Amino acid sequence: MSIHGKNFIGNELSAKGDKSSKIYDINSNEALEGEFFHATKQEVDEALEKANKAFALYKQTSQQQRAEFLETITEEIMNLGDELVVRTMAESNLPRPRIEGERGRTIGQIKMFANLLKEGSWVEATIDESMPNREPLPRNDLRKMLRPLGVVSVFEASNFPLAFACAGGDTASALAAGCPVIVKAHSSHSGTSELIASAIISAVKKCNMPDGTFSMVHGSGRSVGQQIVLDEAVKAVGFTGSTAGGMKLFELANQRKTPIPVFAEMGSINPCLFLPSSLNDTKKLANTYAGSITLGVGQFCTNPGLILALKDTKLENFKIDLAEAIKDMSPATMLSKGIQEAYETNKEEAIKQHGITVIAQAFEDNLPSEGKATVASVEAKTFISNPKLQEEVFGPYSLLVECKDVNELNQVIDSLDGQLTATVMGEDSEMSEYKEQIFALENKCGRILFNGVPTGVEVCQSMQHGGPFPASTDSRFTSVGTGAIKRFVRPVCYQDCPSSLLPEELRNENSLDILRIVNDEHTRRIL
Amino acid sequence: MSIHGKNFIGNELSAKGDKSSKIYDINSNEALEGEFFHATKQEVDEALEKANKAFALYKQTSQQQRAEFLETITEEIMNLGDELVVRTMAESNLPRPRIEGERGRTIGQIKMFANLLKEGSWVEATIDESMPNREPLPRNDLRKMLRPLGVVSVFEASNFPLAFACAGGDTASALAAGCPVIVKAHSSHSGTSELIASAIISAVKKCNMPDGTFSMVHGSGRSVGQQIVLDEAVKAVGFTGSTAGGMKLFELANQRKTPIPVFAEMGSINPCLFLPSSLNDTKKLANTYAGSITLGVGQFCTNPGLILALKDTKLENFKIDLAEAIKDMSPATMLSKGIQEAYETNKEEAIKQHGITVIAQAFEDNLPSEGKATVASVEAKTFISNPKLQEEVFGPYSLLVECKDVNELNQVIDSLDGQLTATVMGEDSEMSEYKEQIFALENKCGRILFNGVPTGVEVCQSMQHGGPFPASTDSRFTSVGTGAIKRFVRPVCYQDCPSSLLPEELRNENSLDILRIVNDEHTRRIL
Repeated sequence: MSIHGKNFIGNELSAKGDKSSKIYDINSNEALEGEFFHATKQEVDEALEKANKAFALYKQTSQQQRAEFLETITEEIMNLGDELVVRTMAESNLPRPRIEGERGRTIGQIKMFANLLKEGSWVEATIDESMPNREPLPRNDLRKMLRPLGVVSVFEASNFPLAFACAGGDTASALAAGCPVIVKAHSSHSGTSELIASAIISAVKKCNMPDGTFSMVHGSGRSVGQQIVLDEAVKAVGFTGSTAGGMKLFELANQRKTPIPVFAEMGSINPCLFLPSSLNDTKKLANTYAGSITLGVGQFCTNPGLILALKDTKLENFKIDLAEAIKDMSPATMLSKGIQEAYETNKEEAIKQHGITVIAQAFEDNLPSEGKATVASVEAKTFISNPKLQEEVFGPYSLLVECKDVNELNQVIDSLDGQLTATVMGEDSEMSEYKEQIFALENKCGRILFNGVPTGVEVCQSMQHGGPFPASTDSRFTSVGTGAIKRFVRPVCYQDCPSSLLPEELRNENSLDILRIVNDEHTRRIL
Repeated sequence: MSIHGKNFIGNELSAKGDKSSKIYDINSNEALEGEFFHATKQEVDEALEKANKAFALYKQTSQQQRAEFLETITEEIMNLGDELVVRTMAESNLPRPRIEGERGRTIGQIKMFANLLKEGSWVEATIDESMPNREPLPRNDLRKMLRPLGVVSVFEASNFPLAFACAGGDTASALAAGCPVIVKAHSSHSGTSELIASAIISAVKKCNMPDGTFSMVHGSGRSVGQQIVLDEAVKAVGFTGSTAGGMKLFELANQRKTPIPVFAEMGSINPCLFLPSSLNDTKKLANTYAGSITLGVGQFCTNPGLILALKDTKLENFKIDLAEAIKDMSPATMLSKGIQEAYETNKEEAIKQHGITVIAQAFEDNLPSEGKATVASVEAKTFISNPKLQEEVFGPYSLLVECKDVNELNQVIDSLDGQLTATVMGEDSEMSEYKEQIFALENKCGRILFNGVPTGVEVCQSMQHGGPFPASTDSRFTSVGTGAIKRFVRPVCYQDCPSSLLPEELRNENSLDILRIVNDEHTRRIL
C-alpha cells in the first residue's frame, strides 16, 4: 500500500486542502513516503455531520454487533502485516520488539472491549419494578442503563503511535460505548495513522456500520482540532499528551454553549517513596530504577520522575550505585526531533535551578536525536519552595528529593500535585509505620503501587490510568482498562417504557443474560 | 429549641461576623425567630481546615460505621419533632402534608444510602490477581475500588428545604461516600437548616466521627459560597438551583488551580410529547396535566413547562379542556417573595414574546404572595426561532408548541436544549411510528417517561435526575437515587499492596461479602 495522505471523511477519502505536511527521518532528515493534506473547514464539517447522523443509527446497534465490529478492526489491523510495523518504526524511532509489542497491546485492548460487550453487564442495568399498590403513592416502573454520549473527538498521542492513537484505547472504548469517533491524527506519525484508519474503515464497511462511524483528519490542533472540539455535535474529547495541549482542549470545551467532558491524560512525575528498609540492597534498587527511568528513553507518562527518601548513609550508597547503573545506559533515539529538543531544554532548565545537583548521568555522549539519562538531587526544603521542580521533564530524567526527617517528608508529599501513580518501596513490616504517608500519597494519585516500578500499565479491569488534576482533567475516569468505556456514556432512565422501545438490556427477558440490579438485588434472573 | 443563628464550624457554634440576616413571613412581613450571622472569612477558613483534617480520618471509616452514622442522623432529625415541621412550613409556605412528606423522603433517602453501604457492592471492587508466570511479562496483583474524593461543598436549594438541603441528597451521598461536607445554608430557610445541622452534629458526636465531618455556614453565595468553592481543600460541589447560580459555580470551579467537578442541577422545561392517540380523551389528559403543572405551585424542577403536539381538531379540544381545568386551580403561596416576583416577571416576559397566546389561566386573582397558573401556546416555527421561549419560568407555567406536521415536530425536538426529563403520551401501538422522535428525545434528557407526568421523582437505584447541559452541568451523574454517591468518588488502583494496607473491600477474605469482579468474573467468592 502506498501512503496517500488523504483525510478519511467517514468512508470517503478527501484531500481538498492546499496545506500539507511531511514527516522527516530524525537522523537523515529525508522525507518519508507520503504528503498529508490538512483537512479544510468544509471537510471537518462533513466529518462532523456524518458522525452526528451515524450516531442516530450506531447507538441502536447491539453490543454483539459492536463486539463483532471491534474484532473485525483487529483482523484488519493484523492484515496490514509488516508494512504497519515498518512504518511505525520509521515514524517513532522505536525498535521492532517494542512496536510489535505495542501492536499486540493495541489488538489486545480492542479485543478486551469486544469481550466486555459480549458479557454485557458493564452497562449497569438497574430495574425497579412498578408497585401499583404502594402507599401513599404507587411506584412507576423505572429502568436505567448507560447509553452512549454521542460523537467523540480523539487526539492521538505521540509516544504510543498505536496503543494511544488511531485505534488506541480512546477510539476502542468510544466505539465500544456506541459513539462515533473523529480522530485528529498526530503530525509525527500520520502514515501509521493512515494505515490504521484504512483498517478501521474496512471494518466499518464489512460490518455495515453507518458511514460516519469513524473519520480521521490531518491538520493542526489550533485549526482542525479546535474546530472539532468547538462543534456542538461533539459530546466528549479524549486526549493523551502535554499539559499545555490538554489544558487548551479543556478550556475550549468549557467555553462552548454546552460544555463537554475532556478526558486529557497529561503530565505526571510519579513520585516513588523509598522507605529506609528499601535501601538495604541499594545495588538492586539502583539497577531496578535505572531500568525504569530509561525504559523507552523515559518517554512514558508513568516514568519515575521523582524519588523521595530520608537522608542517611544508605541513601548515599544508593546515589553511588544509581550513578554507576545510569552511567552504563546508552543514550537512545527519541520519538521525534521536537521531543528530543524539548527534553534537552527542559532538563537544562530543571538542573540549573537553585540547589540542584546532578548525581548520575549516562557516560556516552548522545547524538542530536538521542536522549541521555540524567538524575539530579535536591534538598526537600528547596523542592517545596520551587514549583518548577515539579514540572515533568519528558524523557529519561529523575529527581531525588532528600528529606532530613519524616516531618519534611510529610511536607513534600503535601506539596505534590496530582499524579498518575505513586510508588512505595520497603518491607511490609515497615509499611505500617508509614501509614500516614502512604494514605497521603493515595490522595495524590490514581494508582498506588508497592515494591515495583510505575512503568508498565496493565490493560485490565482493575487498572486506573488517570489521577487527580493535573495528571488528568478528570480523576474519576481511566484511559486504560475496561473502565475507559465509562467516559463515553451517561445513565438514561426509562419510566413505564413499552418493552418494544426498551434497549435489550432492560427488557424483562434478559436475553443477554447480564447481571442487573433488580429491586435492589444483583441478579441475572428473568422478570 | 430557640433559633441561635450561628454557624456550625465543625462541632463548634460560631458567630464572629457583624453581618446578619433575618427571614420574614411572606404575608405579614414580620420577622421569624432568629438572626443569622454570616460567616466571616476566618470562620469559613476554619471550617475548611477542619473538614480537610477530618477527611484523613473519615475516609478510613468502614462502610458499616458510616451506615450507622447516617442512621443516627435520621434518628436525630426525627427527634427534632414537630418543631422542624412548623419551622419549615413557616419558611417555605408549603402545607403540612407536603413538609411531612418531604421529611419522610429526606429520612428515606438517608436510609437508602445507609442500606447501600451495608450491602457494600457499590464500590465497584475489581481484582486482577497476579500471574507471576505469564509470558512475555508477569502480571502484578491489581485491585481497584471507588474511594472518596475529599471535602464536598453543598449548596442548599430553595424549593425543597429538607430533601435538597442541609441533610438532603447531596449531603447524604457525600457523607456516605466518605467525604466531609460543608453546607452553605439557603437564606430563605436558614432556621430549618439550623435545626437539621444541629441534628447532624449530634450524630457526629454520638458516632465519634471526626470534628469537621460536617459544617454549615450562613452568608451570601458571592462571598461565603465563592470562598468555599475556590478553596483547594474542596474537591467537588453539589448544587440545585438556578442556571445563573449553577453556572457561576461551574465557572469558578474551572478557574481554580485544580479544577473540580460541579454537580449543578439547574433549569429544565421538561418537554412532553403528546402523540395523536393521547388526545383521544382530552378531558382526562387536560386534568392530569393541569394537576402536574400546578403541583407545588409549579415549583419543581420536573414541572412540565413544554408540551409538543401536532395540530388537529383534537388538539383544539384539548386546549379547551385544559383552559377549563386550569381555570379551577386556585393560586397558592409561593416559596418566597423573591420567587413569586421572579415568576411574575419571567411569565410576563415569556407571554409578551411575539406569537404567544395565553390559552389557559386560573380564574381567581392571586395575592401578592401567590402564583397563578398560566398556559400559553405558540406555533412551532416561532418557537424554534426564539430561544427565549426555552427559558424556564419557575412556577405554574407551561407552553404548548403546535406543530403543523412531523417534520416541524422533528425540528422542534432538534432545537431543544438538554432536559431533566422528556415525556411521551400515546398508545403503545402508536409509539413505533414515532420511534425516531422518541429516540431523538432520549438524546436530550436524563429520564424519558411514558404516559405519565414528569413531576414525582422516585428515590431509587434506577432514578436518573440530571440531564444533558444545561439541565445539569454533568449528564453522567444523578443527584437523586443511589447513583448520587458516584459523584463524590474516584477509582484508586492498588498494585501489589500488602493486605494490611488494603481497604477491607479489596482483601482476599471479602469479609463484607460484596459482589466483586475477580479476574473478569462477577463473584462474591473468597480468594
